[in-house]
Amino acid sequence: MKRESAIANHRPTASDPQIDSLNPTRRRVFLTRGVQVAGALAAGGVASAAAAQTRTAESIGAQLPSWMTTEGAPMRTYGQPSKFEEPVKRLVGQPFGKLAPGAGVSFTPLQSLTGTITPNGLHFERHHGGVPEIDPARHKLLIHGLVKKPLAFDVAALLRYPMVSRTYFIECSGNSFRNTLPQAQDVPCGAIHGLLSCSEWTGLPLAVLLNEAGVDAGAKWLLAEGADAAGMSRSIPLSKALDDTLIALYQNGERLRPEQGYPMRLVLPGWEGNMSVKWLHRLKLTDGPTHTRDETSRYTDLMRDGRARQFTFEVGVKSVITQPSGGMTMPGPGLHQLSGLAWSGAGRVTKVEVSADGGATWRDATLQAPVLSKSLTRFHLPWNWNGAPAMLQSRATDEKGNVQESRSAWNAQYSSANRYHNTMIQTWAVNANGSVKNAYA
Amino acid sequence: MKRESAIANHRPTASDPQIDSLNPTRRRVFLTRGVQVAGALAAGGVASAAAAQTRTAESIGAQLPSWMTTEGAPMRTYGQPSKFEEPVKRLVGQPFGKLAPGAGVSFTPLQSLTGTITPNGLHFERHHGGVPEIDPARHKLLIHGLVKKPLAFDVAALLRYPMVSRTYFIECSGNSFRNTLPQAQDVPCGAIHGLLSCSEWTGLPLAVLLNEAGVDAGAKWLLAEGADAAGMSRSIPLSKALDDTLIALYQNGERLRPEQGYPMRLVLPGWEGNMSVKWLHRLKLTDGPTHTRDETSRYTDLMRDGRARQFTFEVGVKSVITQPSGGMTMPGPGLHQLSGLAWSGAGRVTKVEVSADGGATWRDATLQAPVLSKSLTRFHLPWNWNGAPAMLQSRATDEKGNVQESRSAWNAQYSSANRYHNTMIQTWAVNANGSVKNAYA
Repeated sequence: MKRESAIANHRPTASDPQIDSLNPTRRRVFLTRGVQVAGALAAGGVASAAAAQTRTAESIGAQLPSWMTTEGAPMRTYGQPSKFEEPVKRLVGQPFGKLAPGAGVSFTPLQSLTGTITPNGLHFERHHGGVPEIDPARHKLLIHGLVKKPLAFDVAALLRYPMVSRTYFIECSGNSFRNTLPQAQDVPCGAIHGLLSCSEWTGLPLAVLLNEAGVDAGAKWLLAEGADAAGMSRSIPLSKALDDTLIALYQNGERLRPEQGYPMRLVLPGWEGNMSVKWLHRLKLTDGPTHTRDETSRYTDLMRDGRARQFTFEVGVKSVITQPSGGMTMPGPGLHQLSGLAWSGAGRVTKVEVSADGGATWRDATLQAPVLSKSLTRFHLPWNWNGAPAMLQSRATDEKGNVQESRSAWNAQYSSANRYHNTMIQTWAVNANGSVKNAYA
Repeated sequence: MKRESAIANHRPTASDPQIDSLNPTRRRVFLTRGVQVAGALAAGGVASAAAAQTRTAESIGAQLPSWMTTEGAPMRTYGQPSKFEEPVKRLVGQPFGKLAPGAGVSFTPLQSLTGTITPNGLHFERHHGGVPEIDPARHKLLIHGLVKKPLAFDVAALLRYPMVSRTYFIECSGNSFRNTLPQAQDVPCGAIHGLLSCSEWTGLPLAVLLNEAGVDAGAKWLLAEGADAAGMSRSIPLSKALDDTLIALYQNGERLRPEQGYPMRLVLPGWEGNMSVKWLHRLKLTDGPTHTRDETSRYTDLMRDGRARQFTFEVGVKSVITQPSGGMTMPGPGLHQLSGLAWSGAGRVTKVEVSADGGATWRDATLQAPVLSKSLTRFHLPWNWNGAPAMLQSRATDEKGNVQESRSAWNAQYSSANRYHNTMIQTWAVNANGSVKNAYA
C-alpha cells in the first residue's frame, strides 16, 4: 500500500482552531455570518509512522522521487528562478510593435508575488526609447543651470559618497489605466495594477550634491534628463529635490539593473514613477518648470469639467487585493486568506478595510509590520467563503487621513477620458463557480 | 572646448559641510583627530551652463554618447543584471571537484552589495548533494512520528494557508571559517563572511501544521529531512518549531529558487543555516534528537579544553565592515563612509562600534532603520583617512547584551581546530598605499 493513499492531502478549514489562533480577527468568522463549514479534516488515514522504519518507507510515496536518488545540479554563480515558475514573468506591452520595440510597458505579476519586496527581475518598466546599455566608466552626471558652480560626477565619485537605504514603492502614473476604460477587462491583477513595484533603494541624497553645487536664489525647479534615446525629461520642484530624493545606485542590494536606470537613477519617493528618471545624466537648475514633451503630452488629469490638472506628482492612497484576484479560481468554499498591497505617496498606510459585499460592510485587515513610509504595505484578512457570489474590495487610509475613493466618487471628478493617476477602489467579483473577475462596482 | 575639461569630476571631501549635515557624528571628524584635509573642491571650471543652449552642448561631452542616439534594447519578461556588473557573482567552492560537483558552497559577494536585502540570485548556498529540480506538483510534505494523525501537504494545499512575511538573515555555521586558519588569507570580504544572506521570507508558521497534526506529549524534537540526493537532515527542538519557525514558500516576493529549497524550505530565524532545511519533505516528531550524519559529523564546536560542544543552534552576535574590505584599495586620503553589516541570532542589534586603531578606541556607528530582529542591520560611519596605516574593526552588541568577541577572547575559548560558529571581530588592515587586507589582530 502506498503511503500516499493512507495519508490524504490536508488543507486548512475554517474549523481549525490553530488557524484561528494566528490572527485575533479570525476568531469571529466574518463576512459570512452564520455559515458553518463542514469541519471534517481531510486526513483520511491514521497510518502509524512508527511501523515503517526504512528510509524508503518513511518517504511520502512508495518510492523515493528521482531527485532524492540522483545528484542534483552543481552550483551557479548567479541564481535563476525554477523552470516550474517560468509563467511568473512580466507581461510586456509594446504599443508600437516592431516600429518601436523599446517603447512600452512591462507589468509586475502582482498576483503571483507576495511580501512587499519586488525581485529585481520582475520590477515593472516603462520605457520610451528602449533600454540603453551604458558603460558606467563613460557615464557622468552633470549638475548645471542656476548653480554657483556646475559639477560633473562619474560613477566612481558617487560611490564614495555616504549612502542610505530606504524601501520605497514606485508606481507609474498610468498604473490601473485599464480600469478607466468603459468595460471591465478580464485580465490578471498585475495586468491592471502591475505598474507598481517596491525595492530597497540605496543611494545618496540629492540634497548633498545640490548643496555642493550651490543653488542660486532664483532656482525653483530642476530639469532631470535621462541618457536613453528618448532623453526622457521631467521638471521637479526644488523642494522635493532637497527633501527625500535619492540618486540611487543599488536596488535590493545589488547595483541597478539596466531596465531600472543603470548606472544611476533618481528616486522621488511617493511621486509618479516617470519622475524617478532612469539613466540620469543631467540635472539643470531652473526658475520654473521646463514643460518638456514628456510632461506636456502626458500625465495630466482630465477633469469632469473639461479642464486638465497638471503636475499631479504625489500618487494617491491606494490598495488592491492580490489574492484572490482576476483570473484565479477559488479552490472551493471554506477559509481563505485574503492578501493584498496598500500604499500612499503621502506617507504611511494606517488602515486597510476589506469588503466582500461590494462596499456595504467593511472589516479592518491586519497590516504586516514593519509599515514603512512610501513603501508597499502587505495586508491580510481571513475570509470564509460560503460559495455564494461575492464582491471583494479593499480601501486604504494613510497617515494624512486620505481615504481611497470608490469608483463612483472617482468618476464624479474625472473625465471618462482620463487615464492617469487612477486610485479608485478595485472590485473582484467572485462567482459561484469560484472564478474571480475584474468588475466595475 | 569639451565641457568635460571645463567641469572636472567631483568627489566628496572632508570639508564639505553638506556631507557633515548628513550625519550628526560627522561634525566631529573622528579617529584622525587634528588632521586637516585640503579643502579645495575638485571642480576646476565655472563654465556657464546658460551659454550653451543646444541639447548636444548641454550633454556632458562634446557629443552625445551612443546610447542617447540609438534605440535601446526592447523589454524582457525577466530582467538580468548589467553585463558591466558580471564580476559581481557568487564565489563557488567545490571541495570534491568533479567527484561531487553538487557538494560545496557559494559565497555572497558582500563587498559588492549594500542595503540589507540579498538579491535572490546572489544568496549564499551550501549543498551536500547538488540542487534538485523538484516538480512542485509531485512534491509533498509529510508530518509524522509522535503526532495524533500523520498529515501530508502538497504545495497547493500549503499555498492556501495564511502566510506571513518576515525579513531574516541566514548564516551558515561554517561562515568565517577562513579566519580560524593559522594565517590570515588575503581574500575579499565575501569569501570570508559571505555564507550570510538576508531575505524577506514568506511562508506559514510551522506551529499551525504541528497543531493540526496534534503533537504527542512525548514529542520533544523534530527530524527535518530535505528531498535532495543527500537527504540532508537535522534535529530541531520542538520549542523552536512552535516559536518563530516558518515553512517558507517565497523569498523576496517571488517563489523560492531551486538553490534555496524550491518548492519549500524551513526557516529557523537566527539559527545556523543548515537547520533551515531546503526542499523540505519530511518532519518527524521524536522524543529526542536523531543524531543524523549531518549533525554528528559536523557543526560541533571544539573547545580549548578538548571537549566538543554540540547543538550550538543560535548564531552569535556578529558584524563585519564591508566597505572598505579585503582586496579593495582606498582611492586616497580624505573622507570615506565606512559601511557594514551586523546581526544576531538572539534578536535585534542595538549597537555597533567601529575602531580604526585595532580596538584601542571605538566610536558608535549609525544603525540604519528599520532595525529588525534576526535580520541584517546596515551600519555607517564617516571616516577621515589621513593616509597612515590603520586597523579597522567593528563590534556589535545585541538586545540581550551579548557583545561580539575579539579574536584573542575567541581563541582563549576554542580549539585552534574549531571551524564552526566563528563570531570573532574582523580586522581590515589599511596600508599606507591604500590597499586593504585581512589581518589577525
